[in-house]
Amino acid sequence: MDLQYPLELIGTFVFAISGALAVRDKEHDLFGAGFTGFITAIGGGTLRDVFLGSYPLVWIGDIFFLYAILAGVLAAFIFPKFLLKLRKTMFLFDTLGIGFFTVLGVEKALSLGVRPEVAAIMGMFTAVMGGVIRDTLVNEIPILFRKEIYASACLAGAILYLVLHYLGLERDYNLLISTIVVIAIRMVAFRYKLSLPRLD
Amino acid sequence: MDLQYPLELIGTFVFAISGALAVRDKEHDLFGAGFTGFITAIGGGTLRDVFLGSYPLVWIGDIFFLYAILAGVLAAFIFPKFLLKLRKTMFLFDTLGIGFFTVLGVEKALSLGVRPEVAAIMGMFTAVMGGVIRDTLVNEIPILFRKEIYASACLAGAILYLVLHYLGLERDYNLLISTIVVIAIRMVAFRYKLSLPRLD
Amino acid sequence: MDLQYPLELIGTFVFAISGALAVRDKEHDLFGAGFTGFITAIGGGTLRDVFLGSYPLVWIGDIFFLYAILAGVLAAFIFPKFLLKLRKTMFLFDTLGIGFFTVLGVEKALSLGVRPEVAAIMGMFTAVMGGVIRDTLVNEIPILFRKEIYASACLAGAILYLVLHYLGLERDYNLLISTIVVIAIRMVAFRYKLSLPRLD
Repeated sequence: MDLQYPLELIGTFVFAISGALAVRDKEHDLFGAGFTGFITAIGGGTLRDVFLGSYPLVWIGDIFFLYAILAGVLAAFIFPKFLLKLRKTMFLFDTLGIGFFTVLGVEKALSLGVRPEVAAIMGMFTAVMGGVIRDTLVNEIPILFRKEIYASACLAGAILYLVLHYLGLERDYNLLISTIVVIAIRMVAFRYKLSLPRLD
Repeated sequence: MDLQYPLELIGTFVFAISGALAVRDKEHDLFGAGFTGFITAIGGGTLRDVFLGSYPLVWIGDIFFLYAILAGVLAAFIFPKFLLKLRKTMFLFDTLGIGFFTVLGVEKALSLGVRPEVAAIMGMFTAVMGGVIRDTLVNEIPILFRKEIYASACLAGAILYLVLHYLGLERDYNLLISTIVVIAIRMVAFRYKLSLPRLD
Repeated sequence: MDLQYPLELIGTFVFAISGALAVRDKEHDLFGAGFTGFITAIGGGTLRDVFLGSYPLVWIGDIFFLYAILAGVLAAFIFPKFLLKLRKTMFLFDTLGIGFFTVLGVEKALSLGVRPEVAAIMGMFTAVMGGVIRDTLVNEIPILFRKEIYASACLAGAILYLVLHYLGLERDYNLLISTIVVIAIRMVAFRYKLSLPRLD
């Protein structure tokens, strides 16, 4: 699938934009916004790779990821109003991003020889932990705890990918189907404000 | 000591329950509670192993830890009221847990060849950092900074273990004694609301 | 440069003091202050080394760093009022510290074979992430997001070091110049309350 590498770079770019814009209401200067965009974009994959002991980290081994982040942060600096008007587009991109990175995270974990249960968690971590770390740094309740079905959509997609994988589905179809399922769950949950029940 | 492995699994199970129940008052859904239970249970050991460069991480290399966590989270989902009524029992289990994991953390660090001063810190980290990370994520002042003598009890037990270790005490006795000392300090401090003096 | 090692220890000592004193107004006991001092002192270098997969971590491989931290924490316990009266001196030391650790972080990253863009980020991380982690733990907006030009001064110094490095400047001069530039930017920004523009 020749599209994978450019899609990873685009996903990183989008995560950097959404991270930088996320702190717009706060008392953050340009540097703080750039830092936050950076953390959002690298957080999930970095945590996954540190947990798996997989070195070098993706953004350290391949400099193009750093440039994708830089481009995202610059875009957020130069066109903030334009990007914020594109709120729906950004939401769409973010949702595409978490779907896609979930599956890639599962695949990377599997390729490093861990069990599928662990791979499912790593897929979810790849997708959502950048946002969790960002929210923790800026002193907000992490997105994971606030939003309509979010990380659980990633976990569901990760488990689906693993099931289809062990059933022998070809990888490209599986990547596509599982990503779409994450996206669909998230979008339906968002539109109808669905959330999981609370503990009480 | 054949009991060690089942005790580790039970300790992990208990930490997962207490982590999941800890967010009960918050605006967290079931998934958020499960995530928090997971982080609480793996946090300390993961930080220790990442700092020591010891791979695979315990819960990645041995899938039974993940199932112990899952069982703890499910127990918290299914029997929250029952478990909260057992508050005293849970407190006891949590206290047993921090005592036991402190000593195991010290032993693991020593076995990886670090100096005893570092091993003492690693023992304390193993026991308390899961709770610290949990509290940071849910935007609370970490337990470490709030409670009656807590992490300092672990540090004291870790140092005691090391002293007895270098004095040549047999390992099983040492494990028992040092764990009991952590537990005793914590329980006395809790009952009499003892805390260390403040800095001023 | 025979001064480097003692300077590193002194820098660690100073970071531990400033970390321990930073929580003085909070509800923290002596242990909490010591813990915070410890995290502040090791945080940046630890994150850098974990990201680069460089083991053992500095403070684990060389016990003198741990003793420098212990000395700093004890100094903060015994002479808090004296040290707080030295606020200007402490500010100076902290500023010297971030300048010096920025450059050392860049050098370590380069020596591990990463690209200069990554080395610049690692230099900045070394200097500022201890404070960021400390602030996150005690539930404050990290220093990075609050203060007059701070982390951006480190990033500027890191980039300067790399430019001079590739231009062939001798290492000792480069270390001196780049450190001074970080310090100068930070002090001018502090005195004139300069900050970068905000995103809006």
